[in-house]
Amino acid sequence: MSILVVGSVAFDSIGTPHGRVQKCLGGAATHFALAASYFTDVRVIAVVGEDFGPEQEAVFTRRGIDIRGIEHAKGLSFHWTGEYSGNLSEAKTLGTDLNVFADFEPKIPEAYLDSEYLFLANIDPKLQAKVRAQMPNAKLVCGDTMNYWIADHRETLGEVLKELDVLLINDGEVRMLSGEHNTVRGAEKVLAMGPKALVVKHGEYGATAFFGDRMFLNGTPNPFRAPALPLAEVVDPTGAGDSFAGGFYGYLASQPSLTSAAFRRALFYGGVMGSFAVERFGTERLQDVRLAEIEDRFRLFKEISHLEEHPGDVPA
Amino acid sequence: MSILVVGSVAFDSIGTPHGRVQKCLGGAATHFALAASYFTDVRVIAVVGEDFGPEQEAVFTRRGIDIRGIEHAKGLSFHWTGEYSGNLSEAKTLGTDLNVFADFEPKIPEAYLDSEYLFLANIDPKLQAKVRAQMPNAKLVCGDTMNYWIADHRETLGEVLKELDVLLINDGEVRMLSGEHNTVRGAEKVLAMGPKALVVKHGEYGATAFFGDRMFLNGTPNPFRAPALPLAEVVDPTGAGDSFAGGFYGYLASQPSLTSAAFRRALFYGGVMGSFAVERFGTERLQDVRLAEIEDRFRLFKEISHLEEHPGDVPA
Repeated sequence: MSILVVGSVAFDSIGTPHGRVQKCLGGAATHFALAASYFTDVRVIAVVGEDFGPEQEAVFTRRGIDIRGIEHAKGLSFHWTGEYSGNLSEAKTLGTDLNVFADFEPKIPEAYLDSEYLFLANIDPKLQAKVRAQMPNAKLVCGDTMNYWIADHRETLGEVLKELDVLLINDGEVRMLSGEHNTVRGAEKVLAMGPKALVVKHGEYGATAFFGDRMFLNGTPNPFRAPALPLAEVVDPTGAGDSFAGGFYGYLASQPSLTSAAFRRALFYGGVMGSFAVERFGTERLQDVRLAEIEDRFRLFKEISHLEEHPGDVPA
Repeated sequence: MSILVVGSVAFDSIGTPHGRVQKCLGGAATHFALAASYFTDVRVIAVVGEDFGPEQEAVFTRRGIDIRGIEHAKGLSFHWTGEYSGNLSEAKTLGTDLNVFADFEPKIPEAYLDSEYLFLANIDPKLQAKVRAQMPNAKLVCGDTMNYWIADHRETLGEVLKELDVLLINDGEVRMLSGEHNTVRGAEKVLAMGPKALVVKHGEYGATAFFGDRMFLNGTPNPFRAPALPLAEVVDPTGAGDSFAGGFYGYLASQPSLTSAAFRRALFYGGVMGSFAVERFGTERLQDVRLAEIEDRFRLFKEISHLEEHPGDVPA
């Protein structure tokens, strides 16, 4: 089933211990859409400037992504500048030029209205709410946010949370949103704010899903932990979380029904797509993954986390 | 098969957001021995003072632990004072009174010499080396250490590492020992120092095992990630790592042979015993776990980490 994603399509200038890139294609909606495109149809709502041309369009269209909802405005596209050091776990933002994004008013093309899966990437919760309101028949709504919106736009964000099925945020955001140090108690508080399920991203340690009692028809499952792949080399972590979200949501949308078993597998596919994303700068790796590579890595994720499933094992 | 553990048997005075205890029984060898005692026979080498009496002895003997190797010296036992705040992830040490531990010279009773599994808990690497040298026929040697020995006793520690089969340390210790931010590259460097396998403890995120090419007869497995249980309440994290080690090593010693499949299950049992340990202050919980509780929690660990194994699932 089709996913509609609203979020940023941007240019990123990134420095990591592995090098620097200037104005490569980025943005949450871009990473998300590319990762999800390996599983299902994806439609994008965003705004770009005059610096976004056929070269950038082709990155989407080569993956079959529908970009009729990308609005072209006068001026430059959103431009983020940041760098990573040490273990690359956190970006230091050096510049945020909103440019055309400052006046972004999401408009949903008629052709997108039948999208059954909605993903509200990390943007102003006011815009997330506007898009949500225009998609009353969405079957599943998943969203992301960040520290900035939690700190300074809590009320608007609260309205968005009430309308979410799944919220995908990281450990620090759970602590900030809930005021709790303990992840389990923090998750309970966040679930009480509206989302039926909460996926907490732990970076190199994977992710944990917590479920409220309205998520699945067949009861409330225990929390579920999905691993991340231990990687010897992370070239550029930018967009890893959005790629995780794309793999997760793309897989979920590709399944015949929303079961807890599908949700668990989706978390593994999230980790798989996140692990590809960081192998090269920007979206380079996600532009060109083979389906067989995705399945191989899914098997590897099982092997590193499951007691059985080890083809190399010999009997004791 | 029998495990011989050398390490501290101590009194701990602990403050956490859940309360305070004064001089409760603690020490790495104590937590380790109790956790391992649910799986196999355990023998302890340690030194205690005149404050260690029948009440403390009974904690070991009720669990069938052999304490003939606990030496009684004049003076007081090792006493650690510490407290935790926030998310309880790190202890602040307020006092370390070595007392009789300052002159500890481990002596191995004749009756212990046939122990096949040796565990060198976190003590001066000089003492670890002495014990190791007295047990030339140990089938498997596993050890722990900490930042203090890595920083100031690196050469002696290096000699111990050469003799280890398995090293169990946490993320920060891997970074410190290897000088690498990246866990995978850090693990490679640590494995090059001697251990055939490295288990990296991630606290609330579980643990990852890395294997060198001499660990198992049947090839070098991929890394393996074991989950930790998401806990809403951690009463006292003191000894969680030692309890993890006890569950891990106890299970391994109980198995007919050292296979990679047994090693993986052992990591799960490590997490299981660690999750019990933190439920109450000191060793209180580990003194009294039922085997059925251990098996139930092992199943829960599988359920929170495995794609299948979910009895509540209904077909899509």
